[in-house]
Amino acid sequence: MDLDAKERFSMIRENLAEILDPELIESILAEGRNPRVYWGTATTGRPHTGYYVPALKIAQLLAAGCDVVCLLADIHGFLDNLKAPIELVESRAVWYRLIITAILESVGVPTEKLQFVLGTSYQKSPEYVMDVYRLSSLVSEHDAKRAGAEIVKQSGNSPLSGLLYPILQVLDEEHLHVDAQLGGVDQRKLFVAAKEWLPKLGYRQRAHLVSPMVAGLKGGKMSSSDADSKIDLLDPPEVISKKIGKAVAVPRVTDENGILALVESILLPAAALKGCKEFRVERRDGLDPLLYTDIKQMHDDYKNDILTPQLLKPAVSAALVSLMAPIQAAYQASNEWQELTLKAYPPPEKKQKKVKDKGTRHPGNKVEESVG
Amino acid sequence: MDLDAKERFSMIRENLAEILDPELIESILAEGRNPRVYWGTATTGRPHTGYYVPALKIAQLLAAGCDVVCLLADIHGFLDNLKAPIELVESRAVWYRLIITAILESVGVPTEKLQFVLGTSYQKSPEYVMDVYRLSSLVSEHDAKRAGAEIVKQSGNSPLSGLLYPILQVLDEEHLHVDAQLGGVDQRKLFVAAKEWLPKLGYRQRAHLVSPMVAGLKGGKMSSSDADSKIDLLDPPEVISKKIGKAVAVPRVTDENGILALVESILLPAAALKGCKEFRVERRDGLDPLLYTDIKQMHDDYKNDILTPQLLKPAVSAALVSLMAPIQAAYQASNEWQELTLKAYPPPEKKQKKVKDKGTRHPGNKVEESVG
Repeated sequence: MDLDAKERFSMIRENLAEILDPELIESILAEGRNPRVYWGTATTGRPHTGYYVPALKIAQLLAAGCDVVCLLADIHGFLDNLKAPIELVESRAVWYRLIITAILESVGVPTEKLQFVLGTSYQKSPEYVMDVYRLSSLVSEHDAKRAGAEIVKQSGNSPLSGLLYPILQVLDEEHLHVDAQLGGVDQRKLFVAAKEWLPKLGYRQRAHLVSPMVAGLKGGKMSSSDADSKIDLLDPPEVISKKIGKAVAVPRVTDENGILALVESILLPAAALKGCKEFRVERRDGLDPLLYTDIKQMHDDYKNDILTPQLLKPAVSAALVSLMAPIQAAYQASNEWQELTLKAYPPPEKKQKKVKDKGTRHPGNKVEESVG
Repeated sequence: MDLDAKERFSMIRENLAEILDPELIESILAEGRNPRVYWGTATTGRPHTGYYVPALKIAQLLAAGCDVVCLLADIHGFLDNLKAPIELVESRAVWYRLIITAILESVGVPTEKLQFVLGTSYQKSPEYVMDVYRLSSLVSEHDAKRAGAEIVKQSGNSPLSGLLYPILQVLDEEHLHVDAQLGGVDQRKLFVAAKEWLPKLGYRQRAHLVSPMVAGLKGGKMSSSDADSKIDLLDPPEVISKKIGKAVAVPRVTDENGILALVESILLPAAALKGCKEFRVERRDGLDPLLYTDIKQMHDDYKNDILTPQLLKPAVSAALVSLMAPIQAAYQASNEWQELTLKAYPPPEKKQKKVKDKGTRHPGNKVEESVG
């Protein structure tokens, strides 16, 4: 492997928790070829800042000369809410493409080498479907369950589709003709299954790029259903500041600290991509600003209360606002995107509270509250 | 409902264990239309005499003016043995079509109104597949398991496809545009699920025709894997006589009596279709033959040992040989069919018995016998 291939591999590996079967990537680089990598997302709720993690990784992969495929899993989006009108489902896929492109452009990455693929463009094809049937015949219920354990809700009453999703996600690697799949640590069991399953069908095993998870603002996993645990990519500056202000950040405690996690997984890598890996914390009373080039220094200062939550939070707010400003600007400049938002994420209709006729069989039932 | 519709309904109901939602059939008949009914079979091993039960029912349905669709589930056949060459799988679907047609012709039923449909012709289509995805999202793992409980093997280690099959079989009703599905009592749980599941997708609920199961020659369920428990539809007369001769038929005991079951579910209905519902048992020594027009009389005589196993068995052999003679004749007359048999059911290759190196971890293991 010449130096160039080594450099490329090192960029590919950067900020990852782990690479499974790295030699598969290395041998492609050694041949001077471009690894083709896929990352998939179901087109459901509005992407939040957590999407910066795969986006920044995708940016690095593009910079390392990889071909990157972004699967917009619109069938999954559709299945996630079968009652939604088809127009909403289709609008969301477009919305995801716009915002993912905007994220990448906000860190100055050219997106020509990024390919967007809709799930509907191949996941209903006869070839794909026969593979779904075939793989389902070769994989046990137990193994499908294990593969999806950290991705889909599982209980006897969970929908059967939860057991099908791992099958689809593994087949995507073959049908998108990629060399590797990128995903969070929560995908690891599925990635291990993919290594085992594809060869059962006579397909080659792929490499897997495992990126770390970002803690939510409240600590713990970022939750799509809890608005306060995440920042929407189009939240205006004052909302960003407010959410950061409310976020959990215990003095001296770096574990499960959502604010430090934002710096580590988003702000520092984004700064690096823009050419200067530095995080700056302004101080009052004529003190020099604190300058950090890696998270270790920040953790040390935080533990010693040199870097207090009171100093850290405004610095993070300002950096996030500045990072996301190009996304905000792209959105404000596009009437098309704004109109699309009304179709993809229509504002909730105000409903009258409906008092249900409960009858006598449900004496203890609460009145069902309408969700607006 | 005028008399004609009543007569038609009565023919449809004949020899069934049960009809679920009979009013769905009755209302179609009342409008003077032809109910469209589907029966499906996976194209796997060679059909045995048990296939006479659905075939005779299909014959009655055709006689009652129904449109009948026979689904040759070749995808299921393929999934049943993924290692089989595709030529074998395709040949078996043709083989099934030939033998089912021959069975019907052996009881004098015109087969123009019988339509054969291959699973591959629609079960890989985008519309069907979206419905597979949709229904999988609406049905719980638990409910899928319950629906298939008596049809597919179930354990944690069973293939995931076992949970998908009920989904497919229910969707077949919609995608084959039928009004009813015909199947054995073992399908009842699936039929009940179908009633519930199709409306979830906005499709109408279908009626279900439930036919009784035929006991195997050894009593109990007819088993495809036990050659002695069933008679192949192309078994020559001497093999038929031998199998009937060896079959369990305890004097005076009518329960789980495979020989009486053959008369009840195949020979009497076949005779009725040919115009004379009668079963004749010859006796020696100048005694008059015993003539039966219903199974109740036979059970009575059998219990009283008037109809002994020694009298019954040769009569059943002779009737079966005679019933199946047209199938044999059609087969002997068709070079195409005979050649197809070599592709669909190639004779087993003779293998050397391999003495496995058992090692020390399997002290008690028997030498694995090669299955020819």
